[in-house]
Amino acid sequence: MDHNPILVIGGGPAGLEAARGAAELGYKTLLVEKAGVLGGTPIQADYAALTPDMENTEVAMKRMTDAVEDDPLVDIRMETVVTGASGEVPDLTVTLNGPSGEEQVQVGSVIVATGFQHFDPGRETQMYGYYEYDDVITLVDTERMLKAGNFVRPSTGETPKRVCFIQCVGSRDRQIGNQWCSKVCCGIACKEAIEIRHMVPDCQVFVFYIDMRMYGFWEDEIYWKAQEESKVSFIRGIVTEITKRGDTVVVKGEDTTKGRPEEVAMDVVILSVGKEPSAGTVQMAEIFGLPLESHGFIETTGGALNTVATSVPGVFAVGASVGPADLEDSVSSAGAAAMKAAGFLRKHALANA
Amino acid sequence: MDHNPILVIGGGPAGLEAARGAAELGYKTLLVEKAGVLGGTPIQADYAALTPDMENTEVAMKRMTDAVEDDPLVDIRMETVVTGASGEVPDLTVTLNGPSGEEQVQVGSVIVATGFQHFDPGRETQMYGYYEYDDVITLVDTERMLKAGNFVRPSTGETPKRVCFIQCVGSRDRQIGNQWCSKVCCGIACKEAIEIRHMVPDCQVFVFYIDMRMYGFWEDEIYWKAQEESKVSFIRGIVTEITKRGDTVVVKGEDTTKGRPEEVAMDVVILSVGKEPSAGTVQMAEIFGLPLESHGFIETTGGALNTVATSVPGVFAVGASVGPADLEDSVSSAGAAAMKAAGFLRKHALANA
Repeated sequence: MDHNPILVIGGGPAGLEAARGAAELGYKTLLVEKAGVLGGTPIQADYAALTPDMENTEVAMKRMTDAVEDDPLVDIRMETVVTGASGEVPDLTVTLNGPSGEEQVQVGSVIVATGFQHFDPGRETQMYGYYEYDDVITLVDTERMLKAGNFVRPSTGETPKRVCFIQCVGSRDRQIGNQWCSKVCCGIACKEAIEIRHMVPDCQVFVFYIDMRMYGFWEDEIYWKAQEESKVSFIRGIVTEITKRGDTVVVKGEDTTKGRPEEVAMDVVILSVGKEPSAGTVQMAEIFGLPLESHGFIETTGGALNTVATSVPGVFAVGASVGPADLEDSVSSAGAAAMKAAGFLRKHALANA
Repeated sequence: MDHNPILVIGGGPAGLEAARGAAELGYKTLLVEKAGVLGGTPIQADYAALTPDMENTEVAMKRMTDAVEDDPLVDIRMETVVTGASGEVPDLTVTLNGPSGEEQVQVGSVIVATGFQHFDPGRETQMYGYYEYDDVITLVDTERMLKAGNFVRPSTGETPKRVCFIQCVGSRDRQIGNQWCSKVCCGIACKEAIEIRHMVPDCQVFVFYIDMRMYGFWEDEIYWKAQEESKVSFIRGIVTEITKRGDTVVVKGEDTTKGRPEEVAMDVVILSVGKEPSAGTVQMAEIFGLPLESHGFIETTGGALNTVATSVPGVFAVGASVGPADLEDSVSSAGAAAMKAAGFLRKHALANA
């Protein structure tokens, strides 16, 4: 079948699966990635291991990148961004800007897989002290240290004795305008807590949370293991302030189970930062004329029963470009979009045959 | 392309999407449903509205059933079960047992979409009084009343003044052997709480919970609305016993926020029952030689990055047959499996061309 390629924008887990899937169905695919490396946030942000299986990120993502790199139906453009679009699918003209300059290509369908960005804990509020105190870090900073095999107090390079996670930083928070739950931070915090306890067995680890959202099998596969095997302490509480006393970080708040104020000293405080739509997601929404939903992600129009359709027929959005997503959400929705993009082109080919 | 049809087992949301998707790609599909009606649990259990959009279930599911019924590539067999399989995909011989007796068919690939069953709150423990007290009902019983437009005290037929939901019945519970979180019961309880408050404005509604797992947009789209607009009261607590005093149901437990025992009288108690693998899921696992994972659902082998692959190439499992799933999980994984089943057949056709 002769057709314009399916354009997949973004080379993270969702984009890689969408491109591979469309090619598996025999459809030409054009995969565009703005960075110099495939793998998306798990690779670019140096994730140590993936949730929930704790598989090494490099190993897991290499399987996905190999699959598209080995497939002659996938044309990969690195360090390339989409800067414009005109016309309509299945004969949409898209402008790409890459290492060899600007180029116009015809595409038959579009799958937006431009993902999320992590909440900046210094934005809107200084209450977390992220930019003031070296020993206040994020989930992402922690992944980097875990991947390097060296979890230390950033201020001293010493092995920490007491570490805590603070959940819902930049999530479930009307003050800063992010009213949604970012879905994966509870699981990632549990995973990192277990990894820290393995790497630094003498270190006590605490998690301050509102609700532990360990849905499905994460409940016993990560959450119970964190408590029972790794002896991580989970404390239901609200953190109101982070300050410094001497060389320790002091976390002030309320233990909402005991119903009393708490003040605890920590060597390292890890902020469980949430998910926001990435700049790329917002840009692609503008270029392809896709409305954003109330939280600022790309709006899907199929309700619960069609997770990837946008208001533009033939243009699909997957993974965290449409809202907080775990890896399963990303690859499942990407697979569904590969099917729908291929189905869209097939329908047009049949209509013109 | 000449090929044996893709066998889709189960006509719920996941199976309908898998069958429609495979047909959209031009592949013959054989959809087998053991009941006399398509739509799966949402239809058979008389769900009123779907989470999170509160779309009328009949309307939403009719879109899905129309799509397969109108597609000449989908061969639908109602009141039919799979009773055996021999050989290997893409030339697997499957035995079907339907209204016209037993039949052998050749299938090219298999998608298992046999879903879940609701936890029976009288199993293992009598602590909830489900079979003793008429006014102790489940989420499912509540859907039926909401769908009928008549939410009443079952024992008297009167309008209730005080109703509570008890979360995690048959979930997160080592005693009864169900260690997982069923993922959707928090969302469904919030949805039903809002519906009850609309239908019976004078009725107070309480939700007793361990953690409210309102991930993603459910946070502000359902949970905040339940609190702020519908004035539902959420109480973090453990329920230890349900008894009766006079004509009210008494819920005993501990409010873990206030740290004190609580005893409250209710007109109706709604048990938020969790998800277990359905009998059909266990049967299909046996027939197709698919190992079960530790919780008793069908094991997928791709980790977080391939949600539908089983240990048998060409046989896929989707939706709640592989674990607790919301509607988005079900249709996304079904779409991904449609792509993979079609890709599997295409690969074999190319190898033999």
